[in-house]
Amino acid sequence: MTLSLFDSQIYRSLLRDEEIAALFSDAAEIAALVSVEAALARAQAELGMIPESSAEAITELARKVKIDPASLAPGTGTAGIPIPALLEQLRKAMERPQDAQYLHFGATSQDIIDTALLLRLRGVCDIVDARLRLLLAALADLAEQHAELPMTARTRRQPATPTSFGAQVASWGLPLLNHLEVLAQLKPRLLRVSLFGASGNSTAFGEQAHNLRRRLASELKLEDSELSWHGDRSALAEFSALLTRINAALAKLAEDCMQGAQAEVAELTLAATGGSSTMPQKQNPVQAETLVSLFQLSLSLDSAMNQALLHRQQRDGAAWMLEWMTLPQICAASGRALQLATSLVTQLQPNAERMLANLEAANGLVYAEAISFRLAAEMPRPEAQALVKQLCSDATGKNCSLADLVAERYPNIDWKALANPGAQLGDAALQAKRFAARAR
Amino acid sequence: MTLSLFDSQIYRSLLRDEEIAALFSDAAEIAALVSVEAALARAQAELGMIPESSAEAITELARKVKIDPASLAPGTGTAGIPIPALLEQLRKAMERPQDAQYLHFGATSQDIIDTALLLRLRGVCDIVDARLRLLLAALADLAEQHAELPMTARTRRQPATPTSFGAQVASWGLPLLNHLEVLAQLKPRLLRVSLFGASGNSTAFGEQAHNLRRRLASELKLEDSELSWHGDRSALAEFSALLTRINAALAKLAEDCMQGAQAEVAELTLAATGGSSTMPQKQNPVQAETLVSLFQLSLSLDSAMNQALLHRQQRDGAAWMLEWMTLPQICAASGRALQLATSLVTQLQPNAERMLANLEAANGLVYAEAISFRLAAEMPRPEAQALVKQLCSDATGKNCSLADLVAERYPNIDWKALANPGAQLGDAALQAKRFAARAR
Amino acid sequence: MTLSLFDSQIYRSLLRDEEIAALFSDAAEIAALVSVEAALARAQAELGMIPESSAEAITELARKVKIDPASLAPGTGTAGIPIPALLEQLRKAMERPQDAQYLHFGATSQDIIDTALLLRLRGVCDIVDARLRLLLAALADLAEQHAELPMTARTRRQPATPTSFGAQVASWGLPLLNHLEVLAQLKPRLLRVSLFGASGNSTAFGEQAHNLRRRLASELKLEDSELSWHGDRSALAEFSALLTRINAALAKLAEDCMQGAQAEVAELTLAATGGSSTMPQKQNPVQAETLVSLFQLSLSLDSAMNQALLHRQQRDGAAWMLEWMTLPQICAASGRALQLATSLVTQLQPNAERMLANLEAANGLVYAEAISFRLAAEMPRPEAQALVKQLCSDATGKNCSLADLVAERYPNIDWKALANPGAQLGDAALQAKRFAARAR
Amino acid sequence: MTLSLFDSQIYRSLLRDEEIAALFSDAAEIAALVSVEAALARAQAELGMIPESSAEAITELARKVKIDPASLAPGTGTAGIPIPALLEQLRKAMERPQDAQYLHFGATSQDIIDTALLLRLRGVCDIVDARLRLLLAALADLAEQHAELPMTARTRRQPATPTSFGAQVASWGLPLLNHLEVLAQLKPRLLRVSLFGASGNSTAFGEQAHNLRRRLASELKLEDSELSWHGDRSALAEFSALLTRINAALAKLAEDCMQGAQAEVAELTLAATGGSSTMPQKQNPVQAETLVSLFQLSLSLDSAMNQALLHRQQRDGAAWMLEWMTLPQICAASGRALQLATSLVTQLQPNAERMLANLEAANGLVYAEAISFRLAAEMPRPEAQALVKQLCSDATGKNCSLADLVAERYPNIDWKALANPGAQLGDAALQAKRFAARAR
Repeated sequence: MTLSLFDSQIYRSLLRDEEIAALFSDAAEIAALVSVEAALARAQAELGMIPESSAEAITELARKVKIDPASLAPGTGTAGIPIPALLEQLRKAMERPQDAQYLHFGATSQDIIDTALLLRLRGVCDIVDARLRLLLAALADLAEQHAELPMTARTRRQPATPTSFGAQVASWGLPLLNHLEVLAQLKPRLLRVSLFGASGNSTAFGEQAHNLRRRLASELKLEDSELSWHGDRSALAEFSALLTRINAALAKLAEDCMQGAQAEVAELTLAATGGSSTMPQKQNPVQAETLVSLFQLSLSLDSAMNQALLHRQQRDGAAWMLEWMTLPQICAASGRALQLATSLVTQLQPNAERMLANLEAANGLVYAEAISFRLAAEMPRPEAQALVKQLCSDATGKNCSLADLVAERYPNIDWKALANPGAQLGDAALQAKRFAARAR
Repeated sequence: MTLSLFDSQIYRSLLRDEEIAALFSDAAEIAALVSVEAALARAQAELGMIPESSAEAITELARKVKIDPASLAPGTGTAGIPIPALLEQLRKAMERPQDAQYLHFGATSQDIIDTALLLRLRGVCDIVDARLRLLLAALADLAEQHAELPMTARTRRQPATPTSFGAQVASWGLPLLNHLEVLAQLKPRLLRVSLFGASGNSTAFGEQAHNLRRRLASELKLEDSELSWHGDRSALAEFSALLTRINAALAKLAEDCMQGAQAEVAELTLAATGGSSTMPQKQNPVQAETLVSLFQLSLSLDSAMNQALLHRQQRDGAAWMLEWMTLPQICAASGRALQLATSLVTQLQPNAERMLANLEAANGLVYAEAISFRLAAEMPRPEAQALVKQLCSDATGKNCSLADLVAERYPNIDWKALANPGAQLGDAALQAKRFAARAR
Repeated sequence: MTLSLFDSQIYRSLLRDEEIAALFSDAAEIAALVSVEAALARAQAELGMIPESSAEAITELARKVKIDPASLAPGTGTAGIPIPALLEQLRKAMERPQDAQYLHFGATSQDIIDTALLLRLRGVCDIVDARLRLLLAALADLAEQHAELPMTARTRRQPATPTSFGAQVASWGLPLLNHLEVLAQLKPRLLRVSLFGASGNSTAFGEQAHNLRRRLASELKLEDSELSWHGDRSALAEFSALLTRINAALAKLAEDCMQGAQAEVAELTLAATGGSSTMPQKQNPVQAETLVSLFQLSLSLDSAMNQALLHRQQRDGAAWMLEWMTLPQICAASGRALQLATSLVTQLQPNAERMLANLEAANGLVYAEAISFRLAAEMPRPEAQALVKQLCSDATGKNCSLADLVAERYPNIDWKALANPGAQLGDAALQAKRFAARAR
Repeated sequence: MTLSLFDSQIYRSLLRDEEIAALFSDAAEIAALVSVEAALARAQAELGMIPESSAEAITELARKVKIDPASLAPGTGTAGIPIPALLEQLRKAMERPQDAQYLHFGATSQDIIDTALLLRLRGVCDIVDARLRLLLAALADLAEQHAELPMTARTRRQPATPTSFGAQVASWGLPLLNHLEVLAQLKPRLLRVSLFGASGNSTAFGEQAHNLRRRLASELKLEDSELSWHGDRSALAEFSALLTRINAALAKLAEDCMQGAQAEVAELTLAATGGSSTMPQKQNPVQAETLVSLFQLSLSLDSAMNQALLHRQQRDGAAWMLEWMTLPQICAASGRALQLATSLVTQLQPNAERMLANLEAANGLVYAEAISFRLAAEMPRPEAQALVKQLCSDATGKNCSLADLVAERYPNIDWKALANPGAQLGDAALQAKRFAARAR
């Protein structure tokens, strides 16, 4: 284990999400910062705020410059932010001081750092969106394929009544549909440019502040924000909360899979995985376990992102840095979890025989509700419920079928037709198909 | 202090939100449960699933019945949920067993409890929506009124550059606009009926399941949900997160107010409050402190609501009960915080003289950025920055005005006109007015 | 559900801990505050700081006075703390102003409130200590009784090797031994008097400050603290963390019980509990579920108690109130959880037959490690492991016993004697007994 | 920013704790795992469980072997843990299979991974202990040196009464004394060996299990644990909570420093730090901000460590991995925070003049309590308090000194002598010195 397990070479096959990691490398940070400075210069040149040639020189610099991340460390250590050190290097790298002076003209560090973050969060949004759709498609296939495969629904850790495996798969996917909708609603709030200067009132940009920000937004393909959000971190917290909820949905799926795959249930077979260092028979549910761990990590870090909302005055250095310590890990946790979940789902195999056997086990008590409803046609329902409760107890005591016991008393009813998984699926198959249709 | 400070008689003037509390009393719980059962019976009667007369009897019962909450305790202790004990009492209270048997017909406890919760969360949504608007209106007035009142913007705990008090007020209100938008988007996801039966597949409702749920939704003025959300608690977590973000925005406002009201800053006067038991001069910022406490409470409980998303299998009793232990307190925290914040804001008085004095204090260093930009017209900007940095240090050392020092070197520039709060507000006033317009 | 579920009449059989609740009622709060004021007066009289007769009058008052909590609400609403309103009422209730003036003489509200809290936390410590011992005794009995009862150990959700039920019980109890030790170590840090005056330097007590505080400590049977802990809340956070870890241990026990009681495993029978509103056969694990919920509640609130450590300057009103909003609930969660866990444990019944059946199920793969070690006497161990891995796969494929398969190849070894739960318990029984000895 | 900011080259001067990081590198992980395997072999050889020559070969291997962390990735990805892949490589690296087979003999992965973790946590304990003492020494110096330097105590964000800077410094250090004590008490619970085999009952070690574990403990200089703690993670959570409380104490210190250094208070000068990218005058409190961020990070991750206590059955892969994702970062946060705090404290300069000026500012209202106590000699104390309250209001209204106002009414009392910081320090200096004595 390394300080962050995401950065461990040992764990990289399990945990590393190269696409997300590439967005949060030192190099990506520097590239994003530099590209925002360049876009700012171009926007300023278009508005005549700085010379065209300076903007070109800055753009050219941005294209070519190579900054060693470690070279920014001393300056960042002193300032708490990398911008002053970065500007110093960029200015040195430019040949002509008359151009260099227009770098970062009127901007404040927060404008650049926040905008550069959002350029990368846009990438995270795209990755999450695409992977959510991929996972939903896999779930849709699974739900549809097994829409009518009977299995035991379990409530409060006990067999309840029959359902279908397709309906269970649909229940895993349902929250993801929700999250996809929220992601779309959130994007315009989140993916905004920041350009408000030292204290959020754009002083150094003068009359052009508004136009300049719009141009920068358009240049970077981000939304504009008419009011300074230096101190309003809501959208970042909303994104963090959404990613955490995505991880929660995947952890629920994983828990259900592990429960279904446990030896005594054996209704699900998970992808073959490696084993134990000492027990030759073990097949540990590694992907599912990891999904649960990633959720818990994300949940704990999300709490820090909410804490960071308490951003004091016009800029709060502590709250701001807290975002950098947590949000990238939350993104990595969600990104990787979506990959793992898709891998888990596409390799998941239901065991129809065992599902049936488990349904029939325990003396057919899962039909108790259905039997009580049928008996309610013969007597008041509370009486029917009380009678069935008694018969359940008898069936357990005598280790015989509940349906047989009730048949002894009410032989004229076709209990076999009723105490039958196919007869008791309700709209499970319909729900599975409805989910599949919405998920595609 | 009581187990929950919200329930303390001692603290009720400070913390009690009677409107929210009324939604989460034992009586309100029972009333909501009973009214859902009655609405279900009516919907079933309309579809011919139960006799019309039984539905009427159940509706009549719902109107009249008085249930002592304590009488449900033994049954709730055994079942973990109040529904079985409640049904038993309701059935006893009905004279005719042939009607009583149609109570709760085909429903599962979760259908009733979740739907009854949402009836009350609808009330919470309405309260939060109305109070957000009230607070935004108060902030709009304050922002507009003081749109051009100069004060010191403070970044990273240090004076930065001038801004206006109106712009600061706008920065407090901005996240609330965001939250109002999210609330509107969330409502259709949140305020849904649940009616899916024991295992989520509506078995006991037969062919009519779909129609019945739509009728119940319409009867209760909730949205329909075509797929069972027994195990998908996303919308509840989303609501909890939203309320927490609202509390965060109010805590930020409160922190800024406390900082502005501290004796050495004295830019803000908060409403007169009581004092210390031993220090006659104390005026403690009680409302603002409470806003911070309520946020931290909400934030911690929100983490439990996210944990509750890990809702296993078709129904997870532990995850479900966790919602009941936390969500009501989060609602109360937000509801009361909105009241306190409105009270704080409407009584907040800026002290223009002191704001000006603080701006001019410290040798006018808040004009350093402006001076450096003006000097950048005379020399390359990095040189200008370095020079001003040196002059800042000199001004501090000699305890004289930065503007005077620069005037010694560049006497031909009108530094007074520049080192002047009015000249350095940028678009602060505009932002204050833009906010006011959007907030109304 | 009420704002706090602990205060609900509906849920009181399940959640109410009357002993803890009695410590955190409004009446208990007032009684504790008044008794600290009286003890302070007595200590001051002993040192000649106030007249003996005034101390007697104050003590007499403390004995008799009845304060309506609601009458303190307006003053508490203004001051954020109840002390000023309480003092006003107490002074009014005293006939002679010359005595009344010596009430709260030189103290600050925080001295009284914190000391009064600790008087009650001492009660919580006693309750938790006693209940921990009770639970440990129950676990000791269970562990000892079933020290040699074979069952399947499960690692990473899969059958691993045999263990004994007694060893599993010991593993539930082990953390509680740890917590009992920590509680004893923590008490002297936690149960201290606070008496440091307005700003923590005891100014108003003059030369006698030190002696006075020692006398007060002795009067109240609390520890003395030589340095002001107004701003050092470490011990409270340490207590909160300990209670949360206790809840965690009980939740782990509960999870294992629920897993053992699930229908497909059926190794444990939990106390009979009530059922479902619609499914006659259901026996929900209410106590175990509640233990998990209480842990998650406690864990989330503990995070707020840690947040409250960031107590600014000499007194932080927001951080302080946050303690009152959270610590009582954490105490109630632990107190009640200990009761529920003891009830769960004392009614827990292992099902020896089923434990054996589960061990033998899945073709005896739980003996894979043991077989591989035995084979390692015949060939290098990695080869033995690889061979057994292959045989495990064959046993699963052919649905026959692993021991039989290996016996075909190595008929001269007595595999039955080895692939036998009794032969594979290792020191499980010894651990169970060792635990029992330490737990008593 | 990188996935973990601790690993960023850009932020390394600010955040990197090389000593802690070295304990949590991939190389350190592998080295620790290998050294535990070697120590196990030696202990087994001593007891005659494996050949002496095999233990020597394994020890030799441990000394020489170079494992590329990335080479373990595929196997770790499959198994979720690195042990099987590591063993495979180690066995390959050994020339003689007859020795190789005794590697990891009878151990389970958890034995090795947990013990290897504790070897490194021992290092963390040592570092934290040493740095706590260093910081305490710096605080002791500062407290003693300024034991009698008067400054304003501030309660609930308002000036309260005089105190001394030394007393404030003592209040920062007090919790650290507590934490040092807890660390010493915790070590024997935490720094234990784990060696319990597949399911915690040491089966594969046979009769020698107990002796073997004691020898291994002695070999590795860890404590023995007679009961398997595979599923009892209490001590790890206790350590995490302690580190978080350490971070909290440092964050409180940092907050107080930032407040004291804010321009309008100016009582403290922090070490010169770098500035803003656009505001030449800025001196941002980088170290103090970082201390607050590190605390919030630690607090959020600590919640995951508590969650990991819910470790199901005999081994819970998800809960276990969660520890690896969080604990190293908590260690790094505490380790680095202790360094930063020491740097902050040793460079902290109180500004005596400004402290005095702030005390006298606001019309000497900080003497209100003292004046009210002196007046209580002339009239009943409640009357005195009411009179002083009125005079405070008058002093504010007329902008004149409270002492002067009271002198008008009671000219015979020497109010100057009383309304004087030196006269109102109480035992502040004594507390500062007491702290210094205890801190050394």
